[in-house]
Amino acid sequence: MNFPQGFRAGAVAAGLKSSGALDLTIIENFGPTSSCAAVFTSNKVVAAPVTWTKQILKGGAIRSVVLNSGGANACTGPQGFADTHLTAETVANALGISSSEVAVCSTGLIGELLPMHKMLAGIQSICLSLSVDSLDSSARAIMTTDTKPKISSKEILGSTFTGIAKGAGMLAPALATMLSVVMTDAVVDEKHLQEIFTRVCNRTFNRIDSDGCTSTNDTVILMASGSSGVQISDSNLEQTLMEVCGSLATQLIGDAEGHTKIVSIEVINAGSEDDAVAVGRACARNNLLKCALFGGDPNWGRILAALGTADADFDPADVDVSLNQVMVSRSSGPGDDRNLVDLSGVNISILIDLKSGLHSATIYTNDLSHDYVEENSAYAT
Amino acid sequence: MNFPQGFRAGAVAAGLKSSGALDLTIIENFGPTSSCAAVFTSNKVVAAPVTWTKQILKGGAIRSVVLNSGGANACTGPQGFADTHLTAETVANALGISSSEVAVCSTGLIGELLPMHKMLAGIQSICLSLSVDSLDSSARAIMTTDTKPKISSKEILGSTFTGIAKGAGMLAPALATMLSVVMTDAVVDEKHLQEIFTRVCNRTFNRIDSDGCTSTNDTVILMASGSSGVQISDSNLEQTLMEVCGSLATQLIGDAEGHTKIVSIEVINAGSEDDAVAVGRACARNNLLKCALFGGDPNWGRILAALGTADADFDPADVDVSLNQVMVSRSSGPGDDRNLVDLSGVNISILIDLKSGLHSATIYTNDLSHDYVEENSAYAT
Repeated sequence: MNFPQGFRAGAVAAGLKSSGALDLTIIENFGPTSSCAAVFTSNKVVAAPVTWTKQILKGGAIRSVVLNSGGANACTGPQGFADTHLTAETVANALGISSSEVAVCSTGLIGELLPMHKMLAGIQSICLSLSVDSLDSSARAIMTTDTKPKISSKEILGSTFTGIAKGAGMLAPALATMLSVVMTDAVVDEKHLQEIFTRVCNRTFNRIDSDGCTSTNDTVILMASGSSGVQISDSNLEQTLMEVCGSLATQLIGDAEGHTKIVSIEVINAGSEDDAVAVGRACARNNLLKCALFGGDPNWGRILAALGTADADFDPADVDVSLNQVMVSRSSGPGDDRNLVDLSGVNISILIDLKSGLHSATIYTNDLSHDYVEENSAYAT
Repeated sequence: MNFPQGFRAGAVAAGLKSSGALDLTIIENFGPTSSCAAVFTSNKVVAAPVTWTKQILKGGAIRSVVLNSGGANACTGPQGFADTHLTAETVANALGISSSEVAVCSTGLIGELLPMHKMLAGIQSICLSLSVDSLDSSARAIMTTDTKPKISSKEILGSTFTGIAKGAGMLAPALATMLSVVMTDAVVDEKHLQEIFTRVCNRTFNRIDSDGCTSTNDTVILMASGSSGVQISDSNLEQTLMEVCGSLATQLIGDAEGHTKIVSIEVINAGSEDDAVAVGRACARNNLLKCALFGGDPNWGRILAALGTADADFDPADVDVSLNQVMVSRSSGPGDDRNLVDLSGVNISILIDLKSGLHSATIYTNDLSHDYVEENSAYAT
């Protein structure tokens, strides 16, 4: 698959990953427009690339993103920030743009400086061979423990939206980051771009929650080149972004580290969307429930106990809960026989009816397995 | 070990546990005073015994507590509450007191009714043989997956404080509850009793956090018989309760299900005690950090990433972190070599210096292990 018009990129194995796999990529938006928006981690402790990219975003234009795996450049102090700055300057010089137009994203182990000689050599090498057909390489270069690249593309009215992403939430080792770049050749109205993109990210990427941990490096960037010449309305923009980002989010949770089950938690009839999200998230983060799902144990009491910890308004004595289409709890008491529930498949659906309003939301998560513990127990050593 | 003066009890294997072990106990305070205080789970979804005990506490006197393992009586609807009421009435009739003076505590699987014929027969049997030397039996009768009974006792100025407890936080299967009864023969001033007991529980039981899950059944009850005739000051009362409850809390986390490490997270120089607790708790609930500790991996970046998610005021760029006495991070950047950290022992200490004030707090937790996943993956089936 190729990039949308107005974008080109390249990727190399710069030597940051010990495996020798692709680990550095540069994506360029050569215009004519450089409209952009971005969403970042809510963690107070952020990596140098996040600090940098937040800062340049105030300039209102991103013409290039450089992304590396093999090192998060988080908790690396002033030297880490200087390294990010130098990375952006090197890309800028090679592309003939300003460093304040170069976003930087990193992912990998926290607390170690990047090998800058490898980074800089890699950047020089990539910039000599940018091409429009390197989408797959870019998607691969940002992978850490992902087992496959994540790409989603959608055409609308003659314009194309394409996104790449890595690392489902915080489920990978050492808080491997969720990074994503979404590109379009549509001409977009900049007025509501950030607002729309924030809303889309809240309803897609922010509704997957594999282990409740929040990374230091999360970054999602939207870039619009305008090179298709197609003007797109705000509503079409939002709808198309919902589809592309929704697909990437689904791919991320579907490749969650150590998962054996993919779990959707749909909360209906909540008093507000925030309440629905809070209830879904409380379940998605409950280790006892996640262990039960791993074991194929229809222990619905754990769902009730989990949703009871949410900061949301509902009557705790009147909640209905279905587990894979069996209503195991009616009005917070026993419902149909729990032994009727078949949890043998990969996909598990939990439906929670709060009977408190008209709002709903779905949170996606996975189970807590032996493999999750194994893969996260000895990463830095 | 015996009960403090003014208390007697008994325990039987009523058949609630399939193992045939002790599963029902009744503790009676025969006075002369029946001063009491209690603290309950913060979960919105609460078991029938919690609803009942909160209700009778308004009467201001508790003269007996009946506790069972083998069933939580949570999410059991109106029938569950009727069963709790009948349980209290049966105890009250047998002891010649009012049912509004009988607290009820249950622990076990959520969502199933208790076998009341076994409960009632057990109560009759116990009430025929109450004795002052059955402390160990009572402590055993409330165990679920605990490997040993938890008892703590302390004498002060001729009065005795003794507590029993089961189930560290929510770490046992199906949200096994943290139950505790603390008894004293001291004469206490009722005026500040609840306030003092709440504060003590907040700084002891509420500072252990094995998996972040909140039970539907948590109950901690304090009863004072006054039978030693020794009047105790509020400050001596608080100090002694801190010791007894602190010891029980330590025993609970030391017997946490599936643990291989016991972890203390001390947060110092916080702007407030609440900030210190929030930072400690954010680390105690971070699965990636807990997996690293299980693996003996000194991955300090995960500590920084975890504390950065706390709702607390501090400078995220200026935090010092020590792991087993090695300062692995200075000013949120790399500190001493992480390879100097020895994580081979059972006890791990994390020290976090927020450099933002004069307050501190310590949270106790454990690691996230294969055994935790195993023991919690097939409980109801």
